[in-house]
Amino acid sequence: MPEPPKVPIPTLLRLATYYRVLVEEEEKGAPRLSSKRIGELCGISATQVRKDLSFFGVGGKPGVGYAPSQLREAVAKVLRLDRVHKVAIVGAGRLGQALAAYPGLGAYNFNVVAVFDADRRKVGKSVGKSLKIEDAATLPRRLKQLKTRIVALTVPATAAQEAADKAVAGGANRILNFTPAHVSVPNGCIVRSVAFTLEFAVLAFFDNHGNR
Amino acid sequence: MPEPPKVPIPTLLRLATYYRVLVEEEEKGAPRLSSKRIGELCGISATQVRKDLSFFGVGGKPGVGYAPSQLREAVAKVLRLDRVHKVAIVGAGRLGQALAAYPGLGAYNFNVVAVFDADRRKVGKSVGKSLKIEDAATLPRRLKQLKTRIVALTVPATAAQEAADKAVAGGANRILNFTPAHVSVPNGCIVRSVAFTLEFAVLAFFDNHGNR
Repeated sequence: MPEPPKVPIPTLLRLATYYRVLVEEEEKGAPRLSSKRIGELCGISATQVRKDLSFFGVGGKPGVGYAPSQLREAVAKVLRLDRVHKVAIVGAGRLGQALAAYPGLGAYNFNVVAVFDADRRKVGKSVGKSLKIEDAATLPRRLKQLKTRIVALTVPATAAQEAADKAVAGGANRILNFTPAHVSVPNGCIVRSVAFTLEFAVLAFFDNHGNR
Repeated sequence: MPEPPKVPIPTLLRLATYYRVLVEEEEKGAPRLSSKRIGELCGISATQVRKDLSFFGVGGKPGVGYAPSQLREAVAKVLRLDRVHKVAIVGAGRLGQALAAYPGLGAYNFNVVAVFDADRRKVGKSVGKSLKIEDAATLPRRLKQLKTRIVALTVPATAAQEAADKAVAGGANRILNFTPAHVSVPNGCIVRSVAFTLEFAVLAFFDNHGNR
């Protein structure tokens, strides 16, 4: 297996930001985009934009800029957004259901193929566009069947580790953790966290602390 | 106005993580907690836990550890979670509605006091526990009325900047941005991002890149 490229996570997040802006500008029919303009739209300096893109061999012409579609394709290739990624959602509460129906995921080539919940009363109910909630007890087997290796955890925090363990047992190796709980996974698995409750706490800290 | 304490954001995020674990352990009735145990539950080293807590003048007894309730109160005081924080949600789509009803916010002393949407057909409909969706056109006036300075943006990415501008016009100075769009705010305002679509893109990158 080829050695994975060593790209720092902040660089990947910036590339994903460029990708979104490029999709939008392409839809608007923008003929060329300067690194300055891309930077403005992303809240990133023009120098950083040029540095990131040239690192991946994507060059703009000085004074002319980048062709949005070409650049979008190049960034998509780096991030592997040029193929469909299957996603399973574990936890069919409000957040899980919102995620299952979120149109923004399709724009990034993510396809929600299954939604699970441990509450048997929810099993069989419709969710997202054309899915039915499945029993979380079947998670490992179903992930293998569906060949799905990306899992979003939208369970309560106290159920996060158990859900992660089941997902890993089913072959998942990339977990997006929407709970504030820490989950342990074996080597080779990647967990990214969407810790919105923790971010609220950060905002609380700045209450009455005035400007920064 | 007193100078705000300079605490790095990663430290605040760790404190918020300790807080959550402390609430849970307190509920379970744990008599004492060692820094090792707190670290395990948070996925953070015991040394880091001790360092963070001693920085804020919270000391554990060697070999005895911390009293959960006392430590929880001390951390809450630092993060200002010892008071109620009012939150307005802008964007009453599935995500905004899920957030409005999310019980985890109450556990951190966040109280959703208003939900707005630009779609007039949604205005007046019930959301969360006992709220009605309000017209986004009234956002600045209503935020001032409600004295709400924390706003969660759950609008489409293309509407994020306009929503942020309106929130700032209403006196909001802390924004939690759930959209993948960059939003510009004046000095003195803080924006934190919950960029879950970007995090999905990070996971896509690791497809077939094997172990890391």
